[in-house]
Amino acid sequence: MNFHQKLTAAWTAHDSLLCVGLDPDLSKFPTHLRGKPDAVFEFCRAIVDATADLACAFKPQIAYFAALRAEDQLEALIAHIHANHPAVPVILDAKRGDIGATAAQYAREAFERYKADALTVNPYMGFDSVEPYLEWRDRGLIVLCRTSNPGGSDLQNLDIGQGRKLYQHVAELVATKWNPHGQAALVVGATFPQELADVRGIVGDLPLLVPGIGAQGGDIEATVKAGRSAAGAGLMISSSRAILYAGKDEDFADAARRVALETQKTINAFRR
Amino acid sequence: MNFHQKLTAAWTAHDSLLCVGLDPDLSKFPTHLRGKPDAVFEFCRAIVDATADLACAFKPQIAYFAALRAEDQLEALIAHIHANHPAVPVILDAKRGDIGATAAQYAREAFERYKADALTVNPYMGFDSVEPYLEWRDRGLIVLCRTSNPGGSDLQNLDIGQGRKLYQHVAELVATKWNPHGQAALVVGATFPQELADVRGIVGDLPLLVPGIGAQGGDIEATVKAGRSAAGAGLMISSSRAILYAGKDEDFADAARRVALETQKTINAFRR
Repeated sequence: MNFHQKLTAAWTAHDSLLCVGLDPDLSKFPTHLRGKPDAVFEFCRAIVDATADLACAFKPQIAYFAALRAEDQLEALIAHIHANHPAVPVILDAKRGDIGATAAQYAREAFERYKADALTVNPYMGFDSVEPYLEWRDRGLIVLCRTSNPGGSDLQNLDIGQGRKLYQHVAELVATKWNPHGQAALVVGATFPQELADVRGIVGDLPLLVPGIGAQGGDIEATVKAGRSAAGAGLMISSSRAILYAGKDEDFADAARRVALETQKTINAFRR
Repeated sequence: MNFHQKLTAAWTAHDSLLCVGLDPDLSKFPTHLRGKPDAVFEFCRAIVDATADLACAFKPQIAYFAALRAEDQLEALIAHIHANHPAVPVILDAKRGDIGATAAQYAREAFERYKADALTVNPYMGFDSVEPYLEWRDRGLIVLCRTSNPGGSDLQNLDIGQGRKLYQHVAELVATKWNPHGQAALVVGATFPQELADVRGIVGDLPLLVPGIGAQGGDIEATVKAGRSAAGAGLMISSSRAILYAGKDEDFADAARRVALETQKTINAFRR
């Protein structure tokens, strides 16, 4: 089963477009976990176990693990997800951007070492920076297109001729040329629903990973209506901090589950 | 001493614009090192010790270490450089591209954990993806501008109005807006000397990191003449494979030194 098949199966089995982002920040952990040597793994494992049946994907952000020298805990976490929640694909959010032999090393890191089902990548260096990952035919590649931060407009909204914007060009490149084996998806932020609709119009049913709801303030109704595919799916709507840090005490995983459930239901109310 | 001061001092002290790239690939290692648990560190340390007085910078590429679970050896390598060759700045080549809290984690990884003097970053997500690093005032930030791979043209050469190309816009953004404290530099490939000259014209004396000589086929004379600053410096001309794998036997470090010396001299012949 490849990434797209696994994602489609999870959308259906869990009736969910919610992607749970795993951004472990020690300073926000419940006090009883702080100081434990494997606190990062324990925290994320509790979140994963509490939300797996509500999620279409998990998305660990590698920067949080790397800053803490916790690569081994990231490996253990992904192994835990595969062993205990095999229906839920794992997206390694690393936004890699490099070419040739170097990209091949990043692919080994993501797919062989961490055993991620999909990886986020940056398009600035062009097709050479995407191609090496495509050899891993059962894995997905999620290309940055339109990001939800204010500075996202600095480059992505530049007019590249006839009113066409850079992010629209990236969407079209990915949909028409960079996806020979059906492995691709795109990152499109939730803060600009009209642009999400633009991208959906360009790429047909390609899956879209949508950060920016929750802490970043994107509106769920507008996001779902603008981004859903013809079948009422096609989205991985990512929420991290709002779920992870919903509670501050020993019952943090229960609090996370409540927020995840509420988010899943709110999303589903606007899917069809 | 900040990154720019350290780099300028190394240009002068070592009379060199050569940046030695550290891309450890086990399959290319001399046979006597293979199978050793710290082979990556031992190989890179030997290269570093053999070339430090010929170099203006060392540039470890993190993908090679990450694919091998060798983060600890990367930490040890950079600590070795700082302890034994303190005049030579270390550029962590990681091409990070993320925003806000996540970029702050990448900054901790690069500057606190690895203690790099500078980091390469990707501009696609805009100023928010650069700003968090600027809090580390003594460190450098080297922004991708025009890369030396064929697919580099896919986005970077797009016309954004009046014949102006995306990479030229990035060069101007970095020179005028993204560099409030003098920490920035740019990555510009060696394979397009006219574009290197373009960028030099836009950014004044800003340092340029130039990959693409050696294995990627860029011409040294054209590169130096197109990219040098008014003072005959301003460049970190990076060579990795041609130096690292110059020899295949126990004398690999001597072979690396010979190639590094030859490259340094060839570069210097065209500086003024």
